Amino acid sequence: MNLDDLTQTSGEWLKGTGPQADIVISSRIRLARNLAAYPFLSRASEGVRREIERTLSERIQRLGGAQHPLQYIDVSRLELLDRQFLVERQLISREHAESDGPRGVGISPEENVSLMVNEEDHLRIQVLRSGFDLDSCWAEISRIDAALEEEGDFAFSERLGYLTACPTNVGTGIRVSVMLHLPALVITKEIEKVFKALHRIGLAVRGLYGEGSQAMGDFYQISNQTTLGRTEEELIRNIKDVIPNIIQYEHRVRHQLVTEDRQKLHDQVSRAFGILKTAQTISSDETMHLLSSVRMGVNLGLIENLELPALNALFIHTQPAHLQKLRHRPLESGERNAVRARYLRERLAQASGEATEE
Amino acid sequence: MNLDDLTQTSGEWLKGTGPQADIVISSRIRLARNLAAYPFLSRASEGVRREIERTLSERIQRLGGAQHPLQYIDVSRLELLDRQFLVERQLISREHAESDGPRGVGISPEENVSLMVNEEDHLRIQVLRSGFDLDSCWAEISRIDAALEEEGDFAFSERLGYLTACPTNVGTGIRVSVMLHLPALVITKEIEKVFKALHRIGLAVRGLYGEGSQAMGDFYQISNQTTLGRTEEELIRNIKDVIPNIIQYEHRVRHQLVTEDRQKLHDQVSRAFGILKTAQTISSDETMHLLSSVRMGVNLGLIENLELPALNALFIHTQPAHLQKLRHRPLESGERNAVRARYLRERLAQASGEATEE
Repeated sequence: MNLDDLTQTSGEWLKGTGPQADIVISSRIRLARNLAAYPFLSRASEGVRREIERTLSERIQRLGGAQHPLQYIDVSRLELLDRQFLVERQLISREHAESDGPRGVGISPEENVSLMVNEEDHLRIQVLRSGFDLDSCWAEISRIDAALEEEGDFAFSERLGYLTACPTNVGTGIRVSVMLHLPALVITKEIEKVFKALHRIGLAVRGLYGEGSQAMGDFYQISNQTTLGRTEEELIRNIKDVIPNIIQYEHRVRHQLVTEDRQKLHDQVSRAFGILKTAQTISSDETMHLLSSVRMGVNLGLIENLELPALNALFIHTQPAHLQKLRHRPLESGERNAVRARYLRERLAQASGEATEE
Repeated sequence: MNLDDLTQTSGEWLKGTGPQADIVISSRIRLARNLAAYPFLSRASEGVRREIERTLSERIQRLGGAQHPLQYIDVSRLELLDRQFLVERQLISREHAESDGPRGVGISPEENVSLMVNEEDHLRIQVLRSGFDLDSCWAEISRIDAALEEEGDFAFSERLGYLTACPTNVGTGIRVSVMLHLPALVITKEIEKVFKALHRIGLAVRGLYGEGSQAMGDFYQISNQTTLGRTEEELIRNIKDVIPNIIQYEHRVRHQLVTEDRQKLHDQVSRAFGILKTAQTISSDETMHLLSSVRMGVNLGLIENLELPALNALFIHTQPAHLQKLRHRPLESGERNAVRARYLRERLAQASGEATEE
C-alpha cells in the first residue's frame, strides 16, 4: 500500500453518512487478542515477537481473500512521519507508532478495518463505521475474530474469558466507542455534566486523539472502561443506551443557542468560516476550533454550500503529518501553519464552489 | 437637494484618485468669514442671526450661477438623523449639527465645496479635494471667497486681518488640513513620534471626526492651529512641506512590516477581509479597524480585486446615520450592527465580483 494515496482520501469513518452523522462521527469496536501459543509481549523476547508478527501478518493477509485483500504494513520499517500519518487516520494507536520492535498493521482499503500486531496485545482488531452504527461494527468484527481464531487459538480462560496484557481488557477484550461532535455542550459548558454522568456509570471520555477534557475540535470519544464479568452484547447495549441521551442533549442545547440568540451564533460560525477561508497562517488548534464552529453551523443550516464529508476530511487533512505528506517533505511548525492555511483556503473555495484567489 | 440621493454616492473627497491617494485621503481648506455689517454670533439676537442667514443663503445660491448651482440646505429644519448624516459626510461640523437657531449649509453637487452659515462664524467656506492637492483647494476657495466678498464686505482689520469669533482664527481665518491613513505607524506605535513632532511645529492632529489620539480607522487629520501673523500661502506651504515626510514615514514602516514578516501582515489583512465578508453583526469601531487593515492590504498588493474608491466609501457608508438613511428608519445599536454586517457582506461581495450568499 502506498501511504501517499491515502492523502487524497479521508477514510470510511469520516464519510459523514451513517445514522446521526451530524453529531456522531464514528462508531468503533476493538478486540484485544493474544495467541495462546506465545507469552504476552511484556515477557516475549525480540525473536518471539518476530515470530508472533510473522504468524499474525500471514493470517491477516489470508483474511480478506483474493477479493477483499487487507494491506499489511510493517510499521517498524516506516518513517516517523508515516507512523504519525497512520495515527492521525486512527489506523494505529500513538503507542503503536512510538514503540519499537517487530510490529505491523493490516488495513482494509476502505480504512474501516485495522488489525494492529504487537501493540499492547499480540493483536488488536478494530472496526470503524461512519455515524452511529455499533451493530454493523459488531457483526463485522465478530466475523473477523472468528475467521482469525479458526487458524489457531487465542489465549482464553473458561473462568475469565479472553486473557489480555492489561487487566482492564480481560474478559471480552472489547472496547466499544463512539466519537461525538459536541460543540454546543462545550460552548455552554454543559459538557462537564456529561463527563460526570458518564464517569458515574463507568464510561470513559477521551478526545479525538486520546487527549483529555480539552478535546480538539470538540470531539469526544465515549467508551467502556472495563469488560470483566460482562458480555460483549451487554457492553455494546450499555453504550447504545447512553449515546442517544447525549445526542439529544447536544441537539437541545444547539436549539437553545439558536433560539436565544440566533444572530450571535450565526455571527460566530460565519466569522469562523470567514477566517478559515482567508487566513494566511493558522495553527492546528485554531483550525480545529474554527472547523468545529463551522461544522455546527452547517448542521444548523447557518452555513450553506458546504458538505459534511468535505468538512470532516479537513479535520484530518490539516493534521501535521497529513500536511507534510501532502508536500512530500518535513515542514517545521511555521511552514506547516502556512501550508495548512493555503490548504484550507483552496479546499473551502472548492467545496463552496468559489474560484481560488491564487 | 434630496439627502437620500447622497446615500448612493460617497463624495468627491473619497474618490481615491488624487495625488498620493494611497495614504492621503483628502486635502481641505476652510476660511472663516464674518459679514462686516453684523455683530459676531455670540452677540447677535435671534432676529439678527436670521438676517445673517438670509443674506448669506442668497449669496450662496447666486454663487454657482445657473451652470453650477449650489444646493442650500436649511439645517435648522433637518431631523437629527439628517444632520448626523451631513456630519458623517464632512459637509457640516458636529457643532453645526448640534447647535440651534437659524443656520444652513450650501453644498456643491460633487460635495467638494460646502459653506456653513452661522456655525461659529457667520460663514465657513470649505473646499475638499481627493488626495494630496492643496493647491487646487486654494485656487477654488480663493475664487469663492472673492466672489462672495464682491457682494458685501467681510469683517477685516488692516492690522489683524480677517476678524473671527475665536482668536485662533483671526488673521487669515484659514485652516489647512490633510487627512492621512496611517495604519502602519499605528501598528508600530511610531505614530506617537509623529504627534510629538507635529505638536512642536504648531500643527494639530485630529481623527476622522475630530476625535483624539485613538483615531477611528487610523485616519489622522493634520492641520494648522493658528493663523495670526502669517499669510495663507505660508500656512499652506508649511503643511505642504510636512506631509510628504509623514507619507514617506508611513511608506517606510509599511515596507518594513512587509519585509520583516510579510506572512504575518498578509495574514492580518486577509483575516480582516474574511471577517468583514462574513460577520453577521459588527460594531462601527470593529468595522473601521478591519477596513483600515484591508485598505493597507489593498495598497500593498496583499489583497486583490478590490478598488480603493469602493473601500473608501465603506468607511462612510457604514457610519450610523448612513445606515439608518439606507434603511429609511431609526435603528437601535444592535439592529445597526446587523444592518452594517449585511451591508458589508453585500458590498464586498459585489466589489470583489463574487455572488452574494443571500
